Amino acid sequence: MARSIGRLLKGFHGLSTLPELGVQLNHLPTCVSLRTASVRTKVALSLPFPPKPRDFSLPNSSWGPEMLGLYEHYNSLCEVETEGGEKREGPWQRLPSYNRSLKYATGGVYLSKIIQSKARLFTRNMRDPGAAFEYVLFVNEGEQRCVCIFQAGHLLEGPPGHVHGGAIATMIDTVTGTHASQLSEPVMTANLNINYRSPIPLGSTVLIESCVDKKEGRKTFISCKVTSTDGSKLHTDATALFLSIGVSHLLLRE
Amino acid sequence: MARSIGRLLKGFHGLSTLPELGVQLNHLPTCVSLRTASVRTKVALSLPFPPKPRDFSLPNSSWGPEMLGLYEHYNSLCEVETEGGEKREGPWQRLPSYNRSLKYATGGVYLSKIIQSKARLFTRNMRDPGAAFEYVLFVNEGEQRCVCIFQAGHLLEGPPGHVHGGAIATMIDTVTGTHASQLSEPVMTANLNINYRSPIPLGSTVLIESCVDKKEGRKTFISCKVTSTDGSKLHTDATALFLSIGVSHLLLRE
Repeated sequence: MARSIGRLLKGFHGLSTLPELGVQLNHLPTCVSLRTASVRTKVALSLPFPPKPRDFSLPNSSWGPEMLGLYEHYNSLCEVETEGGEKREGPWQRLPSYNRSLKYATGGVYLSKIIQSKARLFTRNMRDPGAAFEYVLFVNEGEQRCVCIFQAGHLLEGPPGHVHGGAIATMIDTVTGTHASQLSEPVMTANLNINYRSPIPLGSTVLIESCVDKKEGRKTFISCKVTSTDGSKLHTDATALFLSIGVSHLLLRE
Repeated sequence: MARSIGRLLKGFHGLSTLPELGVQLNHLPTCVSLRTASVRTKVALSLPFPPKPRDFSLPNSSWGPEMLGLYEHYNSLCEVETEGGEKREGPWQRLPSYNRSLKYATGGVYLSKIIQSKARLFTRNMRDPGAAFEYVLFVNEGEQRCVCIFQAGHLLEGPPGHVHGGAIATMIDTVTGTHASQLSEPVMTANLNINYRSPIPLGSTVLIESCVDKKEGRKTFISCKVTSTDGSKLHTDATALFLSIGVSHLLLRE
């Protein structure tokens, strides 16, 4: 049970960045116990979500051949076959993605006043496939690497025909934050330092790759680059700093 | 005529950031001449926009009292009355804001292949008032300052109940980039360095203030902070570097 919550919170990466909480939502029981330090509180989740919310990380009709091809490549590495024909987990793992964060607790009472029913995850707030952020994340725990395949929709425009610098920053925060949260506790973004090298045309597919530089106490340092899918063109590079945080204050009412 | 184009391009701030081009679109004639260095080309604009597109910088029903109060304060400083009762421009200027970039030229031919008809400005891509980015920018040329009043809608969620770090980065890029483009030529974002100090609750209104640190050749250095509306709480601070660019290649077909 505690492990379920731990896994849930592992996806939560902070107070100024993106939680991919939905990833664990399907695994949550409707009533779970949470133990933190010296306090144990029952948290009842009256899940207002459909039993199987839409997983935005799966292919849809808007994905172009480049996006689909890369998805299939990394997805094929998520499961490998042994010599004996047995299937087991591969080196990569696809991270599902939903448009909601955690919502209710304690029998319908809000988990806290800051968790609002109408809220939607910034990168998943559009129903129209292909219009904005189309992306899927794969993580390789062994190599401490994360790869995101990102197709930029026409509603992300900044300068004519190109992706807005803020939309690029949003994807960098998403990828590095999700990566940092996979490594340990929930985290919050403390710093993003982004160099814009070359503009990204609307409609194009790019790769966003992150790797862990170091961990020091509560700090996780991650670097990241955005390139063309063949890696030949560098669009953006960035460093990110995340701080591990306690989140019990978000879940508990005392 | 050349001045009209100059004013048009002044609003365009780069290849990885946000142009507020619509601001001058109403003033453009349907056929204008553009002189750049040694080339003079006729650029005909078959404006596919309604004559008066929606100006997103004007109040709507979603604006809360804090947003409205601040808007009225800065708006009142855009026009002052002399002792003789005459009205004239004040120290501040409100910047109109639209959801499109420049689209067509030369009698219906695309300005360039990179300018797409369906594209919408990232920060103005929602029709629903209050759902995402509600903001208005005021600029004070004399003091080289820019102020943005920003109300964060429920579709900008990152961590539960709080604004996504990418949405904050988007607003910082928008404000600093618009500010840099007001000072000189069109610019592109070269670097954003953002420190996240304190999370911003969804639905709240904050102030984003930018000031010019220095200009060196093609470079403009701007710093920026995001605070509560009374200035007592620092949410985010950032520095930004912009490079002046030539944009004739976006407008001309040879």
